[in-house]
Amino acid sequence: MHHTYQPTHYHTTMGPHEPVLRVKSGDSVSTTTVDARGFDQRRVSVSPRGNPQTGPFFVEEAEPGDTLRVVLDEIVPNRDYGFCTSSLAPNVVDPDYVAELPTPVLAEWSVDVAANTATLTAPETRLGAFTLPLAPMTGCFGVAPKDGQFLNCAGSAEHGGNMDYRGFVAGTVVEFPVFQPGACFFIGDGHALQGDGEICGAGVEISMDVRFTLEVLKRRSIGWPRGENANWIFTCGNARPMDQALQHATTEMLRRLQQDYDLDAAEANLLLTQGVRYDVGNVFDPQYTIVCKLNKELLPPRK
Amino acid sequence: MHHTYQPTHYHTTMGPHEPVLRVKSGDSVSTTTVDARGFDQRRVSVSPRGNPQTGPFFVEEAEPGDTLRVVLDEIVPNRDYGFCTSSLAPNVVDPDYVAELPTPVLAEWSVDVAANTATLTAPETRLGAFTLPLAPMTGCFGVAPKDGQFLNCAGSAEHGGNMDYRGFVAGTVVEFPVFQPGACFFIGDGHALQGDGEICGAGVEISMDVRFTLEVLKRRSIGWPRGENANWIFTCGNARPMDQALQHATTEMLRRLQQDYDLDAAEANLLLTQGVRYDVGNVFDPQYTIVCKLNKELLPPRK
Amino acid sequence: MHHTYQPTHYHTTMGPHEPVLRVKSGDSVSTTTVDARGFDQRRVSVSPRGNPQTGPFFVEEAEPGDTLRVVLDEIVPNRDYGFCTSSLAPNVVDPDYVAELPTPVLAEWSVDVAANTATLTAPETRLGAFTLPLAPMTGCFGVAPKDGQFLNCAGSAEHGGNMDYRGFVAGTVVEFPVFQPGACFFIGDGHALQGDGEICGAGVEISMDVRFTLEVLKRRSIGWPRGENANWIFTCGNARPMDQALQHATTEMLRRLQQDYDLDAAEANLLLTQGVRYDVGNVFDPQYTIVCKLNKELLPPRK
Amino acid sequence: MHHTYQPTHYHTTMGPHEPVLRVKSGDSVSTTTVDARGFDQRRVSVSPRGNPQTGPFFVEEAEPGDTLRVVLDEIVPNRDYGFCTSSLAPNVVDPDYVAELPTPVLAEWSVDVAANTATLTAPETRLGAFTLPLAPMTGCFGVAPKDGQFLNCAGSAEHGGNMDYRGFVAGTVVEFPVFQPGACFFIGDGHALQGDGEICGAGVEISMDVRFTLEVLKRRSIGWPRGENANWIFTCGNARPMDQALQHATTEMLRRLQQDYDLDAAEANLLLTQGVRYDVGNVFDPQYTIVCKLNKELLPPRK
Repeated sequence: MHHTYQPTHYHTTMGPHEPVLRVKSGDSVSTTTVDARGFDQRRVSVSPRGNPQTGPFFVEEAEPGDTLRVVLDEIVPNRDYGFCTSSLAPNVVDPDYVAELPTPVLAEWSVDVAANTATLTAPETRLGAFTLPLAPMTGCFGVAPKDGQFLNCAGSAEHGGNMDYRGFVAGTVVEFPVFQPGACFFIGDGHALQGDGEICGAGVEISMDVRFTLEVLKRRSIGWPRGENANWIFTCGNARPMDQALQHATTEMLRRLQQDYDLDAAEANLLLTQGVRYDVGNVFDPQYTIVCKLNKELLPPRK
Repeated sequence: MHHTYQPTHYHTTMGPHEPVLRVKSGDSVSTTTVDARGFDQRRVSVSPRGNPQTGPFFVEEAEPGDTLRVVLDEIVPNRDYGFCTSSLAPNVVDPDYVAELPTPVLAEWSVDVAANTATLTAPETRLGAFTLPLAPMTGCFGVAPKDGQFLNCAGSAEHGGNMDYRGFVAGTVVEFPVFQPGACFFIGDGHALQGDGEICGAGVEISMDVRFTLEVLKRRSIGWPRGENANWIFTCGNARPMDQALQHATTEMLRRLQQDYDLDAAEANLLLTQGVRYDVGNVFDPQYTIVCKLNKELLPPRK
Repeated sequence: MHHTYQPTHYHTTMGPHEPVLRVKSGDSVSTTTVDARGFDQRRVSVSPRGNPQTGPFFVEEAEPGDTLRVVLDEIVPNRDYGFCTSSLAPNVVDPDYVAELPTPVLAEWSVDVAANTATLTAPETRLGAFTLPLAPMTGCFGVAPKDGQFLNCAGSAEHGGNMDYRGFVAGTVVEFPVFQPGACFFIGDGHALQGDGEICGAGVEISMDVRFTLEVLKRRSIGWPRGENANWIFTCGNARPMDQALQHATTEMLRRLQQDYDLDAAEANLLLTQGVRYDVGNVFDPQYTIVCKLNKELLPPRK
Repeated sequence: MHHTYQPTHYHTTMGPHEPVLRVKSGDSVSTTTVDARGFDQRRVSVSPRGNPQTGPFFVEEAEPGDTLRVVLDEIVPNRDYGFCTSSLAPNVVDPDYVAELPTPVLAEWSVDVAANTATLTAPETRLGAFTLPLAPMTGCFGVAPKDGQFLNCAGSAEHGGNMDYRGFVAGTVVEFPVFQPGACFFIGDGHALQGDGEICGAGVEISMDVRFTLEVLKRRSIGWPRGENANWIFTCGNARPMDQALQHATTEMLRRLQQDYDLDAAEANLLLTQGVRYDVGNVFDPQYTIVCKLNKELLPPRK
């Protein structure tokens, strides 16, 4: 079944808030998200800032210990104005270089969905009409966290959250561990495009039209967000330092290979030794994100 | 001028050792490297283990404060036997998962340069004749380190060293800061291919035929290794944790953009905010490597 | 005014839960806390595990942006049974040593408040009746976190939480930033004594009788928990890695010196260069705690 | 036998340099050290800067795999002028606070050995004649590193080096693993006193008269520097981040307890759980130092 939900309010924490919609496993939802500062497609402020989320969507069948499978069917900017900041964050450069960072100003982008481009319109620089291809993604999404926590949308953990990974584009399938009845799915923080790491603290921030499908995998327990696209399977680890995020992601991939594919521990390890790839997600916010990937060509059939 | 050098000995530290060959800026050299454990193309042990290096090559014009430009002209495995270990290293998985890592055994690979493949031959697993495409690279290379140090070939720093980055393949141009007269260039630790991070502590380790060209860029001072290939420019940061390696690489890219291209600090920052990409090099050894990349299509003309 | 509160329930998250008692600035409270697993003075399970907290105590005058000053008047174990685990946690030893850690068992301690000692009673070892002096403290306490979050009692942040610092003994004064109306003070996780770092994941865990005084400092804004005892002032930073925790604590001390004492930035820096001391709090849980200290003999008069 | 050695040159790397003196196990040496910038007791520059070391002292009996035991018999400033910098280093404060650090200037101290005090003489501040008690120590000392490396005196590793730990005062016994024939002992970088962490990058830097005794413990293999004073035994870990330094130090303490005392792994773990203390050494330089301590009252008799 397909639902259309028009948000009336947003949440800047992820947790077992009152559901905005109850759906069944297999249902899909069309809705909208506001930008990281709470402005909608009309550029009207409709929420406090802080990656406000649309949701939560309550999936009837979901119980703690299950897995929520999310298909990101569609992620499309719904206005032509995007923005970011113009300078890198102090935490991504050497401490003794921080004083040389230019004072950040608002950087504005003209987003053209038809042309599939974003073009820098301000400030004026010798970069001219700097233009990049769109790659619309969700920077922050996931489910209610473990332990009954309500976590702000700056952070990330086992439940997802503000991972700012460029791989979360339309067509991607993402799995989250379910910690609360109904899972409580949230989505927001659209980026028309983003560099790795979100190193200025922002992608090209924008409001979005999104469509997604929610499916409950009963009695399937996972530890960290897992994803799949046309060519890759991947796992996400969220922590500081990056070393620990990488440990989480790598461990989850070892577990996934043994859980989903016909591989024992020795085989899963051997496959990863020379097959592994890593991507860098958020390195700006309290928790950093590392993604561990494996090309599907290297995988044996699924169990 | 082209030189051919047949190694008679190797070094497991990088520093101002007695040169094995003196060349002029612009000269190229053909030579061979042994594998990480000191075995040559005949699989005969000719050096103690520890990423033994061929070199140092002394470049007449090079003085501290200059930059050494290295073109990796050719990197070709010169035998058909490669090896790695079969299990991940304890430092790349969650501490509470370490006890679940299988006991590592020697994993052996048949390397076929003509077919461009490496095929796992032992141990026997249900992965079968697991085959991967070759991507021959140097895991450890660089120049004599700063401060008159002799550093072992497990580590990495401003001078290069054991960075284990998959991008160091034939066709790549790499720049190193010069810390000693003659620069003292070393190369070794061939990998027929490698997963990101060298997370078992090894690529498919192999001996190599290599050819490279050395050029001195006078009065050009850089901080960290820089590279360039057909599509990308990149900078390397080597440190622990990964967070600090990323800070080094990002800072060096900001400096490079202002040094080599017609960009001021504000423009360099803005370009990176949405244009940056990161790759993960070594995450096994004492220092980790993060590579900061920018697509050449985004760059203004060189100064 | 003095209140006596007998808990009827506990919270394993810290956040703006329904207050259990409303008090006025300057009031003191006598109450009890259960142990980290939710057992009370009778060794009866009265709460789920996870450092269950007594509270929240709502302080009428407290508004976001104020500071809550807490005097830990009394912290006394109220039973004679304490426990911890017997082996170190995998994250505090070298990754390649983890496999050598003995399987942890429950370690039990007989706590004698009159004699001021805790004596190991199980398991049997050649350490014999291993006896340590009591130093009763609260491992986890603080206020509702920022951003309307509810955080579990494993973690720590600006609001306090599970800092496991040996300095939080009776007689200590602690200040917390107020993020929610009423501040919402919590206390729990008593330790009869504790080694630095809580490196097995536990102190000598025990239930407690506690008495504390709550005072609101209006329009005083601080960033991280601050403390004071007979000889020292201190600030706490909570984060991973320890390096970042140390940055938070050191920065907060620089701010404190300029806010509370007649010192400018140059003087505050100079005082710290040779006067600073650091203590190590929790190094087991998701966030680590570093304490930055300054001896009161070195301080100029308070503003 | 007692030797007196008057230095004629110094080394800013630690490694198997030509010995300045050959001694026998059990011999003691009186000599002098220059300050971190290479100035001697007359304030004359006699060496390039970078913690120049006096030595190496070659101990005849020492072979790789042995342990060198060093008694720090005497450490006394031999001039009245000490110095440090006036502001904290950018890497010990929050990245977004770096821009608020005052520009560092030279801070000068008058050192009075008879009165046992150091008094700040410049710059002028409202701290007045800020006076601290002396606690003379060596910031950088140790032996030639592993793998035939020559490491600069900014860093630290298994061989010791620039640990900047306040505990290295006269009366302390320190053990180092021997990596080179003769061990090659070095000492330098005197501090009249020092705050924890050397967070401005300097203690009160000064030249020193030192006396030490060198003893070889044959066929005793240790991993990291170990120490002992009147009340404590301790172990040092040197790495970044601090988390890894703490892992090294803690693991070495577990090994020491089983090697030197009549304790098995379970007992060593249990002893540490509630008995451990940590101190913070250098947190300024490339490697950080964490010290793991145990009070001697808690120890069973030595093996």
